[in-house]
Amino acid sequence: MERSILLIKIIDFLGSSIKAVHGNPTDIEIKYLKDPQSVDEFTLDWVNPRQPAQQKIAESSIAKAIVVSPHIEFTQSLKDNGKVLLVVENPKLTIAKVGNEFFVTRPAANIHTSAVIHPEAKLGKDIFIGANSIIGKCKIGNIATIYQNVVINDDVEIGDGVIIKPGAVLGFDGFGYEREKNGQLIKFPQLGKLIIHDQVDIGSNTVIDKGSLANTIIGHGTKINNLCHIAHNVVIGKNVVITAHVNISGSSIIEDNVWIAPNSSLRGHQKIGQGTTIGMGAVVTKDVPEGETWVGNPAKKLIR
Amino acid sequence: MERSILLIKIIDFLGSSIKAVHGNPTDIEIKYLKDPQSVDEFTLDWVNPRQPAQQKIAESSIAKAIVVSPHIEFTQSLKDNGKVLLVVENPKLTIAKVGNEFFVTRPAANIHTSAVIHPEAKLGKDIFIGANSIIGKCKIGNIATIYQNVVINDDVEIGDGVIIKPGAVLGFDGFGYEREKNGQLIKFPQLGKLIIHDQVDIGSNTVIDKGSLANTIIGHGTKINNLCHIAHNVVIGKNVVITAHVNISGSSIIEDNVWIAPNSSLRGHQKIGQGTTIGMGAVVTKDVPEGETWVGNPAKKLIR
Amino acid sequence: MERSILLIKIIDFLGSSIKAVHGNPTDIEIKYLKDPQSVDEFTLDWVNPRQPAQQKIAESSIAKAIVVSPHIEFTQSLKDNGKVLLVVENPKLTIAKVGNEFFVTRPAANIHTSAVIHPEAKLGKDIFIGANSIIGKCKIGNIATIYQNVVINDDVEIGDGVIIKPGAVLGFDGFGYEREKNGQLIKFPQLGKLIIHDQVDIGSNTVIDKGSLANTIIGHGTKINNLCHIAHNVVIGKNVVITAHVNISGSSIIEDNVWIAPNSSLRGHQKIGQGTTIGMGAVVTKDVPEGETWVGNPAKKLIR
Repeated sequence: MERSILLIKIIDFLGSSIKAVHGNPTDIEIKYLKDPQSVDEFTLDWVNPRQPAQQKIAESSIAKAIVVSPHIEFTQSLKDNGKVLLVVENPKLTIAKVGNEFFVTRPAANIHTSAVIHPEAKLGKDIFIGANSIIGKCKIGNIATIYQNVVINDDVEIGDGVIIKPGAVLGFDGFGYEREKNGQLIKFPQLGKLIIHDQVDIGSNTVIDKGSLANTIIGHGTKINNLCHIAHNVVIGKNVVITAHVNISGSSIIEDNVWIAPNSSLRGHQKIGQGTTIGMGAVVTKDVPEGETWVGNPAKKLIR
Repeated sequence: MERSILLIKIIDFLGSSIKAVHGNPTDIEIKYLKDPQSVDEFTLDWVNPRQPAQQKIAESSIAKAIVVSPHIEFTQSLKDNGKVLLVVENPKLTIAKVGNEFFVTRPAANIHTSAVIHPEAKLGKDIFIGANSIIGKCKIGNIATIYQNVVINDDVEIGDGVIIKPGAVLGFDGFGYEREKNGQLIKFPQLGKLIIHDQVDIGSNTVIDKGSLANTIIGHGTKINNLCHIAHNVVIGKNVVITAHVNISGSSIIEDNVWIAPNSSLRGHQKIGQGTTIGMGAVVTKDVPEGETWVGNPAKKLIR
Repeated sequence: MERSILLIKIIDFLGSSIKAVHGNPTDIEIKYLKDPQSVDEFTLDWVNPRQPAQQKIAESSIAKAIVVSPHIEFTQSLKDNGKVLLVVENPKLTIAKVGNEFFVTRPAANIHTSAVIHPEAKLGKDIFIGANSIIGKCKIGNIATIYQNVVINDDVEIGDGVIIKPGAVLGFDGFGYEREKNGQLIKFPQLGKLIIHDQVDIGSNTVIDKGSLANTIIGHGTKINNLCHIAHNVVIGKNVVITAHVNISGSSIIEDNVWIAPNSSLRGHQKIGQGTTIGMGAVVTKDVPEGETWVGNPAKKLIR
């Protein structure tokens, strides 16, 4: 995706988050964000602070402008080659912000003619609803981006700025049965709601069930990737990261800023303390205290 | 969801499954089923026999009427507070039945205009088919509830009383390939059927493939949660519980009353004996004998 | 599915891949491919070389014609019973080819009226697109079979002969966030493409994201089963088998002819060497060298 942006405009946008600009940014034009293998002179390049040999990466970049951490030096060779360094605390975060401001275009507000919207649904302003999505008698806030083939049930409440990717299914009956003596399974009533707060992202084909007697709640700013299952009565805090294929069983509590790696499973009725990290494929059968990292099957605290 | 039901009507509905009624149920009105945190005087409360301190929970409930196990005593304080206890063997099962009878409303029979139905599909009576669902040249029994965006292929046979949640995909080709010497993968023919018996529930975005040369069969009363994969030729018995994210590989046999926890994987061509329990995240690579519990990766018999 | 095919026509089709024909194939009519339990005299039966007691299986088959490996003998009893043996190197591969030629019918080229196709989408010849599928401003090659409820985003490039099962979601934003100091998650720009080469099969409800700054690439002849998640920037080689519920995290490289068992998870930025096998439920956190088999959580090399 090619754009044409003056570097000084980007510097202006970043404002005080830039600690220093080395070299002369005047007249430098930025056309792309690219991966390291494809960088050219018009790319706004960056040095990932999680990589080794960062100074060398900066020195060998073909780009004219590079976003770097404070420990990268503006050497004589960078100077001689006419490079410009934008020094920031977190280069990846800076590239994210530049990307969102200059390179990403949100779908324009529009409701596709093939979408099926309940006549009593309450929709906010500036909403995109993609083809074949089905919106029940629910409530959706402003600036929502609801992609194609999404199904949202009655009684779901969704805040502002939410992004829902294709195929997600939100707010249908949870999975609860009680066995008769003869083996027959009697469905437990699913009468609760699903409440999704502002700025939540929900991945493709992810399923979030409504509560049974309580509500299922997804907290502000939480991001959920593709193909996750979030069961009835789960309560998730703020800014939680739930990667792909995660299974969160019923009535679990996930506190703020938790990070859950792919394909991990959380037993029901457990509490995952704030700031914890759950490793890939972890099978968590107990409460996890604040700030700890748990891995394995069954999951245990990682001792480093 | 507020209703207004006289407690004596509920007692009448439950009939002989009530062992005793303590206190005076006359004129008590029930409006809600609620979770413990939200109980009020109009809630039909219950004490979960799987919890500790059950007598205390009963004593401290704000509700006028409480469903309890036989070992809960009708103490002087309960009496003095005008409480009514409904004594039953399984309070959760009782609440499930009351919920289904008085609080849950099945979608009324209706086929949404946007659903795409094959002209030769054979549909039973009293069927709900949600928006954008696609029904092939298949056979569906009576009292089926097929939610939105479901895709059912030709040649699928579905019994009575089935519930299929949004996004489920039923009866398409299984995944079988044979490698040529040059590495090329040749698809193995998928010519079988998918047969789903009565009273089966199928979760959102779950996928069940048809058989290759045999049939895939889901037995009477079996309940399958969201995002499960059930491969070609799998044969599942009666009243099996398959929770979310479960993977059942090809040609497996799952006998009656098995319980499979989330995110577990069953290798193909294995037999899971009746009444067994498969633990969360279990990776089952062998036959599991009747009645055993297997957990872990690789899964082994749980010795308690 | 009943057909009527003369065995000599099948022999003719198989040509030089048949090493020998024992018995007299003239006038034998083949109507079915069936599983071992259902074989009748009109079935083209076969003996799976991965089974024990193969000679006995051949001897006891009711079918008139049986596809077998070279080590199966044409005994006097087979002769006396008028059986015909087709001797080939790989009976399962032979049955696959016969099935594809004589028993499987690809959906005829057609675009369902309910499909939503971007006016600038570039579609090849002989394409099937099922009901309610949504095709963005993308490019799709010849002889593609795109089933129902599939969602393909803009900028996706798809080769010839691709099969995409219902509910698959292709080419939407990957999952990348960078945390602000206050915990807020800032989305990393997702500007890459998704490129799918020829002869790729994609399973039901599988999700493949586009690249972030690079591209996501699926190589020639690779087959992906249901409910898989393939993240941004993943590069998959040729003839790879990815079974159900597999999670491949961002920027992984999967080389040619790899085989990945169900429910396994691959950490991001890893390289899975060509011809490796990843076991069921494996949690792979490291690079896997060529040709090795890795199993477990965390996954380790299997020593046999």
